[in-house]
Amino acid sequence: MVEERPIVIVSNRGPVSFELDTTGTAVAKRGAGGLVSGLAPLVRDTATMWMAAAMTDGDRFMATQGATVAEGFKVRLLAFDDETWAAHYDTVCNEALWFAHHGLFDPVYQPAWPAGWVDGPWAAHRRVNQAFADALVEDAPLGAVVLIQDYHLCLLAPSVRERRPDLRLVHFSHTPFATPLWLRTLPVEVRRELIAGLAAHHACGFHTDRWADDFRASCIDTGVSAPTCFVAPLGPDPDDLAATTGSDACTAAAAELDQLVGDRQFLVRVDRIELSKNVLRGFDAYEAMLEADPSRCGRVVFGAFVYPSRQGVADYDRYRDAVLQRVAAINERFGTQDWTPIHYDPHDDYPRSIAALARADVVLVNPIRDGLNLVAKEAMVVNDRNGQLVLSPEAGAWDELGVAAWRADPFDIGSTAAAIAAALDASPEERIHRSRALRHASLARTPAHWLADQLTAAG
Amino acid sequence: MVEERPIVIVSNRGPVSFELDTTGTAVAKRGAGGLVSGLAPLVRDTATMWMAAAMTDGDRFMATQGATVAEGFKVRLLAFDDETWAAHYDTVCNEALWFAHHGLFDPVYQPAWPAGWVDGPWAAHRRVNQAFADALVEDAPLGAVVLIQDYHLCLLAPSVRERRPDLRLVHFSHTPFATPLWLRTLPVEVRRELIAGLAAHHACGFHTDRWADDFRASCIDTGVSAPTCFVAPLGPDPDDLAATTGSDACTAAAAELDQLVGDRQFLVRVDRIELSKNVLRGFDAYEAMLEADPSRCGRVVFGAFVYPSRQGVADYDRYRDAVLQRVAAINERFGTQDWTPIHYDPHDDYPRSIAALARADVVLVNPIRDGLNLVAKEAMVVNDRNGQLVLSPEAGAWDELGVAAWRADPFDIGSTAAAIAAALDASPEERIHRSRALRHASLARTPAHWLADQLTAAG
Repeated sequence: MVEERPIVIVSNRGPVSFELDTTGTAVAKRGAGGLVSGLAPLVRDTATMWMAAAMTDGDRFMATQGATVAEGFKVRLLAFDDETWAAHYDTVCNEALWFAHHGLFDPVYQPAWPAGWVDGPWAAHRRVNQAFADALVEDAPLGAVVLIQDYHLCLLAPSVRERRPDLRLVHFSHTPFATPLWLRTLPVEVRRELIAGLAAHHACGFHTDRWADDFRASCIDTGVSAPTCFVAPLGPDPDDLAATTGSDACTAAAAELDQLVGDRQFLVRVDRIELSKNVLRGFDAYEAMLEADPSRCGRVVFGAFVYPSRQGVADYDRYRDAVLQRVAAINERFGTQDWTPIHYDPHDDYPRSIAALARADVVLVNPIRDGLNLVAKEAMVVNDRNGQLVLSPEAGAWDELGVAAWRADPFDIGSTAAAIAAALDASPEERIHRSRALRHASLARTPAHWLADQLTAAG
Repeated sequence: MVEERPIVIVSNRGPVSFELDTTGTAVAKRGAGGLVSGLAPLVRDTATMWMAAAMTDGDRFMATQGATVAEGFKVRLLAFDDETWAAHYDTVCNEALWFAHHGLFDPVYQPAWPAGWVDGPWAAHRRVNQAFADALVEDAPLGAVVLIQDYHLCLLAPSVRERRPDLRLVHFSHTPFATPLWLRTLPVEVRRELIAGLAAHHACGFHTDRWADDFRASCIDTGVSAPTCFVAPLGPDPDDLAATTGSDACTAAAAELDQLVGDRQFLVRVDRIELSKNVLRGFDAYEAMLEADPSRCGRVVFGAFVYPSRQGVADYDRYRDAVLQRVAAINERFGTQDWTPIHYDPHDDYPRSIAALARADVVLVNPIRDGLNLVAKEAMVVNDRNGQLVLSPEAGAWDELGVAAWRADPFDIGSTAAAIAAALDASPEERIHRSRALRHASLARTPAHWLADQLTAAG
């Protein structure tokens, strides 16, 4: 990466997190999450500054210390009181904005913004964004390119741009962008601030043309001039993946999976149990496939590496309960002494997930709506059995992978079942043909390309 | 209406329905429903033929008799076996298409089209449409203009057009039209047939530009050339309304309401308890208003003339239960010996509803999404107290009435509460000003204009 301007990254989660040990000393640990794992290797041991919110007690302590260098990252953490943070993160980001961008509301009942929502939770969200704006105004090096990441931080550009005209501001959305009609489910002040906030960047980036189009349509609907938009899908880091597949943990997991699967076909999904991921209908489709052709029983195992997400949130707990019941019902209905139709693994074990994707005959990725879905690309990179991909056209990655994937319309159990069956039954020639195309497409872009596109877009 | 070509109207419900009396004789009764009451006076005692589905045993008997004249209407009824009808009407029209056009699905769980849905219920829907097509081919007079009404009957044009090139085919949608993303929740074959079916008409009509735009966007998304589209909102028949307001039943109801309301302010809604009508959030907003300003307690009555719809359908029963609980909770919380905050009337009594709309200080119409909402216009025509309108911008009537209505964003309890409060508090001058504008806009178009627009669009 050749970039002469200083860079500042701004995101909700940072590349390191601190924990207080028994002596009260803050000890740094590497952060997790897709955004962080993509960006971190590229900015480690550089002069890039990374601003993020404090999440732990250790983080909050470090937030009082100003900018720090830890694990090779120059970080500045911002702390907020519990009430502000809960309103910003849980109520606004995870409930309102995540649901709006992914189209997850049950419109007959949700949302129902109570009186005071704009002056309460939304005002807290505004304060958090404002605190990032103030920190940028204070700390960003002269002439820096500021790369603001994701849907949590859309409101800070207008204030920064006014006070620091030397900075170049780029926003990148890792989620889809709400359609104009979904954005209209938000209170009118909220959607106007959101669109005006994004429009104040020098450029706004998305994973696919579709999300950029939805954003531009909402600009028109709100009467705001759209900023420059660019499309820059993320890709996996092949070296990173190779390091994982070569690890002892992955090798051990692969051996266990060999034992588990034997000479059966192996259908795999790896997901958080997030409402948008459509885990439930994936099991429905698998059941429909077994029902339609009972001769498949005993010849296939569905490895579902799906781990809980946002536990304690009622909608998510209810969904996870429904998933567990569905899995139990299918295993009860079709299982035999020798064969369990669904191998359900709720542990978030990255090497094991990668081992499963590598060993899969078919990978199922059927989200209702998904910003990109990096797992689909990772799967095609690590897989060594000409693995097939059953993919929803509502995943951002469809634009790049749709040409060689089997199409699964996310609301259509029948067509998803048919796609899984076709993928399992594909001839060796077809498997090779599709799998090569998918691997090629998945390797086409790395995190370095994605970062470079943001810097270019800064102008 | 000057139209020299013969006219055929095709709709799900006809202008008359037959009941078998004790001797087994079929006795005609006037039909109900918005479409029928708008069109019926215009085509009664003319040569216009009306084709509709048989709904009752009497209808099914008459269906075997070919075209009949009853109550001044020349009708031809088409009968279907129970299984075909249930699949067509309940499963496809009321569950799938109504939900898609109004955006009512809870996307995390609904829809989930089972394997066989396309070959089962959808095929039944196709058969019903095909039967209408065959009847048209057989019975439509040479060179007739065929006005096909609503979302139940979108598939018949291709077959009719091929076999009867002399006919001019016009379709009119009384519902909103699904956004492209909502249409994508339907199985791929279904959405293609739907769009291709509509596109085979000489013209397609809608209540507002927005629905026409959504339809055209779905044509693009499906790769089909859009037909000529026209916008022709329906308006109420002022003579019809005057006949009702002058009726004994309406006068008696008005006297009862005087007793009930006294010198309090009167907030009114008149709706089926249909998921799209947003009855629940209307009560939430009323509660929020009382909570924000307890001095309103005792000074206002909310007359909710909301009657059950689609009873026995789980989603509707659950919603009605939620509505009843909400009403009971609000009356329990704020009610006193002298004052019940919500007067809840579940009886579908048209003269009484009109009396309530006539006497209202404020009428609340806050749908999630609504093709037009004729009630909003009827209210402004019959009201004699400079009644104000609190209106959702997601109702088709917003295009005509939005300029003088108080805006209630349907998902925003806070803004809806504020709109109701502002409407109740408006100065006499503002009330007169807005109410005149609304009355003027509501009288601008009658059913005759709407019918004439369809005939003109036929070309």
